[in-house]
Amino acid sequence: MASPSALAEQALLLEVAATPTPGNVDRERDLDDLRFDQLLAGASGARPGLERLANGLEIGAGLETAVRGMVDAAGTNTQFGALLLLSPLVKTAAEGDLIREAADLTTTKTTVDDAVAFYSSFDHVNVAVDEPPEGLEPLDVRRGSEAEDVIRERDLTLRDVLEASADHDAIAREWTGGFTRTFGVAEQLAASSEPLRERAARAHLQLLGEEPDTLVATKHGEDVAKDVQKRASELDPDDGEAVERFAEGLVERGINPGTTADLLAGGLYVALQREEIEP
Amino acid sequence: MASPSALAEQALLLEVAATPTPGNVDRERDLDDLRFDQLLAGASGARPGLERLANGLEIGAGLETAVRGMVDAAGTNTQFGALLLLSPLVKTAAEGDLIREAADLTTTKTTVDDAVAFYSSFDHVNVAVDEPPEGLEPLDVRRGSEAEDVIRERDLTLRDVLEASADHDAIAREWTGGFTRTFGVAEQLAASSEPLRERAARAHLQLLGEEPDTLVATKHGEDVAKDVQKRASELDPDDGEAVERFAEGLVERGINPGTTADLLAGGLYVALQREEIEP
Repeated sequence: MASPSALAEQALLLEVAATPTPGNVDRERDLDDLRFDQLLAGASGARPGLERLANGLEIGAGLETAVRGMVDAAGTNTQFGALLLLSPLVKTAAEGDLIREAADLTTTKTTVDDAVAFYSSFDHVNVAVDEPPEGLEPLDVRRGSEAEDVIRERDLTLRDVLEASADHDAIAREWTGGFTRTFGVAEQLAASSEPLRERAARAHLQLLGEEPDTLVATKHGEDVAKDVQKRASELDPDDGEAVERFAEGLVERGINPGTTADLLAGGLYVALQREEIEP
Repeated sequence: MASPSALAEQALLLEVAATPTPGNVDRERDLDDLRFDQLLAGASGARPGLERLANGLEIGAGLETAVRGMVDAAGTNTQFGALLLLSPLVKTAAEGDLIREAADLTTTKTTVDDAVAFYSSFDHVNVAVDEPPEGLEPLDVRRGSEAEDVIRERDLTLRDVLEASADHDAIAREWTGGFTRTFGVAEQLAASSEPLRERAARAHLQLLGEEPDTLVATKHGEDVAKDVQKRASELDPDDGEAVERFAEGLVERGINPGTTADLLAGGLYVALQREEIEP
């Protein structure tokens, strides 16, 4: 049986290899500013941080190590959101059965140190995030490690920090809402007998049609994110040409539903870890 | 700086992502019995073995661990030849500068135990190999760990074993001939300013046109291997359609120049390790 960190890396690799994943880098598409090879390298670079996390390092420090390894290997931010989602899942799997309740418990055990390390991980990487709400400027994640004093003063754990983002960030919502969509994707992946890459592409499209992608909302506004969601929900996943036209349209407009890819990576990991799918 | 094992894994990932690599699995092609996703998983699965090797484990034992991890993750043999080539290179890089002389010295230091572990690695995997020469049946690698007594009786090191295969196996030839082609590929990759995947595809075609692929010779005979070499050498790498026709023809005939892919993976690793290329 492979280690949780190895399977988390495999999930990242299988996510980027799945195709088509409209608007995202996939086996058949590079974006102007993000290439397939960089995502492969990012997955590989993140692995030691995930491995240390599985071996006992705290979630915040493990995530920061993984993010730094990802950036060093890929030269850019490739999978920050996916690593944020994978970290508590890997920690949970390393400690016992990977079930929703256990993963939720893992997030409730995060500490102020985890929150500080999470902020520090933004020192290494540019991540698209919303402006902080009024009054929360001192907790803007873009402040990176400079936010440490405020975090400690306010005694915020990593889960507390993510609670504050849960309304506009789907990964934070997974962290604070029991990983509903992540485990849902895993179940969907496990239930089908199609080739894995087709299942993964189908799951991506379904996620995209289910809720607005929060990275798209951050970069292009809520209306655009809702429009993308609506169009995805109306697509027939078996109509390859229509899916391809949709994908082309997203790429032309520079719309990259990265959070949806992150959720797919999380779902792939859960299903791999529970031995419900194989490459 | 990433660890040698991380870079070796990245080389395996970048090799399979390079396209077109006629006859081999690549980003744009699965084979009937070998899928892209399996090669990604195989690279990931091999990493812990390579890491232990870099951290001091002997070459034979490290290779055997890597092969077992590869098969466990991928469900089949995906990169045996590449791992055989990478093992002494990773060991060399872990101990000092990765230069040809040092890599050659690494192979001369292999022991009888390394040879025994190399044979044992065939217990885990089906590898296409030639029938052993007359009188050498007891040393048929397909005997796996059962050959241990013979290896010890004859006091054969792993380099000795590979010397015996050097006339019909290009990876054994690298092991015993100072890694000429591997380092040659690395230099070629480092010299160009094209996108890496184009350089890698070009290097693959050049390797294929340079010498008969020994896996093709093993599976289809020397004449077929020579014919493939000749046709590859006559191709204009910039004539995409001609390269594609050539690739289609190989796939239709079930011809898979896997040794050429192994050499490319080795060259990618050397260039990554020497920081001459990046993903």
